Amino acid sequence: MPFRHVAIIGLGLLGGSIGLAVQQALPGTQTSGFDLDPASRARARDRGLVGSVAETAAAAVAGADLVIFCVPVGAMAAAAASVAGALAPGALVSDVGSSKLTVARALAEALPGAAIIPAHPVAGTENSGPDAGFASLFRQRWCIITPPADASLAQLTALSQFWEALGANVEVMTAEHHDLVLAVTSHLPHLIAYTIVGTASDLEAVTRSEVIKYSAGGFRDFTRIAASDPTMWRDVFLSNRDAVLDMLQRFTEDLTELQKAIRKGDGETLFEHFTRTRAIRRSIIAEGQDDARPNFGRGEQAEA
Amino acid sequence: MPFRHVAIIGLGLLGGSIGLAVQQALPGTQTSGFDLDPASRARARDRGLVGSVAETAAAAVAGADLVIFCVPVGAMAAAAASVAGALAPGALVSDVGSSKLTVARALAEALPGAAIIPAHPVAGTENSGPDAGFASLFRQRWCIITPPADASLAQLTALSQFWEALGANVEVMTAEHHDLVLAVTSHLPHLIAYTIVGTASDLEAVTRSEVIKYSAGGFRDFTRIAASDPTMWRDVFLSNRDAVLDMLQRFTEDLTELQKAIRKGDGETLFEHFTRTRAIRRSIIAEGQDDARPNFGRGEQAEA
Repeated sequence: MPFRHVAIIGLGLLGGSIGLAVQQALPGTQTSGFDLDPASRARARDRGLVGSVAETAAAAVAGADLVIFCVPVGAMAAAAASVAGALAPGALVSDVGSSKLTVARALAEALPGAAIIPAHPVAGTENSGPDAGFASLFRQRWCIITPPADASLAQLTALSQFWEALGANVEVMTAEHHDLVLAVTSHLPHLIAYTIVGTASDLEAVTRSEVIKYSAGGFRDFTRIAASDPTMWRDVFLSNRDAVLDMLQRFTEDLTELQKAIRKGDGETLFEHFTRTRAIRRSIIAEGQDDARPNFGRGEQAEA
Repeated sequence: MPFRHVAIIGLGLLGGSIGLAVQQALPGTQTSGFDLDPASRARARDRGLVGSVAETAAAAVAGADLVIFCVPVGAMAAAAASVAGALAPGALVSDVGSSKLTVARALAEALPGAAIIPAHPVAGTENSGPDAGFASLFRQRWCIITPPADASLAQLTALSQFWEALGANVEVMTAEHHDLVLAVTSHLPHLIAYTIVGTASDLEAVTRSEVIKYSAGGFRDFTRIAASDPTMWRDVFLSNRDAVLDMLQRFTEDLTELQKAIRKGDGETLFEHFTRTRAIRRSIIAEGQDDARPNFGRGEQAEA
């Protein structure tokens, strides 16, 4: 057990899942937590997301040797500032934010002198809030840890062991590289999904009811991630701006190429492109990162 | 039972599913079929996709009062030509193609004088071929029928009853409107998914292994439909070119607007856009067109 007492600031999908997972996987570890929203604190108490829900962030972190910030990346600075002076000596500070360069900077500025090792478990659902968390969220998912150059090896090891105890695989990389990788595997897909769902709901010639009825043709797949928490995602795009804009530029170039092929009736280019994208899906399934069953194994209502 | 003998030309995901569904839902109806690929014919016999698998398309349609073409839309003309002269008098000709204007034209040209009512069941999976079909594919999905202006009402009613017997809901509209609706609910999503998966596999700074590992951040959702049959999709884009290019233009404009908001740090525009896209997901679930469980109810491997 690498830590005796874990404090969680922010008790939404990620924070709640960590609290439940720690209680299940590390029963000897104390857990405490705080959420800025009183209704979320009440719900966290009801669900037992952590051992004790405090009334202030400072009270939640008192005595903790690991403090994890689980708030939207744009709220990290304020959340960290709210515990300044209350951290136990030697406590390790971490987070779960989807962008790491700006978060690392925000935490370091708000908590000068504290030991900080940012992290990002690549796991989630489209749901958010204190009702969304569950203990198995991190199983067989990857957690990326982005230690600063002067991080303590002992604390890095402890944090890795902590995430492994929760069922995750751990990878260590720089914050810069993390932000580039996540821009393509997570941020760009969310931006695209939000865009196409918006485009579909703004049409005049096609009604919203038609979009919904015939969504099984492919569109419904995009609506899932476009139902994700708007605050969280607004913050992600603002904080990882450069990498997202870079990936978006590449995506737009590729889309323009396919658009040109459609306009010109160039079936060969289309066929060639559509053929090579199959291999990635096969690899994702082989690596246990998705369900192999058709349609993600959706339980269609009619068969229930 | 609206038809006594249904012939299916093309025994892939759609054709095979229709064959299995007819045998299950309409046991008194005879089924026959043909596939241009000898291996698919052999597999169709093994799986019993239809009552009898013929060695030619002409033999398969002999005596049938409903003939359904289940081939890629670019292959409709040749498939229809291969049964010209072999259709029983009064037989109704239909299809399952994802674009309807060009298919209606191709069928009418290849089979002058035949009764033709095109249709499109909006159902499928990312798999293809004679092993992919299953009897419940059409349950609680929509089947769009696009009758020409001179279609017989009796035959339109019979075709509607046929699809309802297979578990589908039926909607009737013009081929023009179908092509516009499907451009946004199916064709554009596939084009976008194929594009982003291609973009991700072409990066230099991010390895393919990283793309796969961290795909649970959102990317994996896109890889499912980007694993769909390349021939089928090449044909769809070529045959529904104008509607696809129109929808793509609107999508690109919307994407440019969000890109600008990210570049300018305009969080309000992003937040507002991300908030209104949630409602569509809720409606799709309420209408039984998707699984309400988080992550599509994926059975994560770790929990198996």
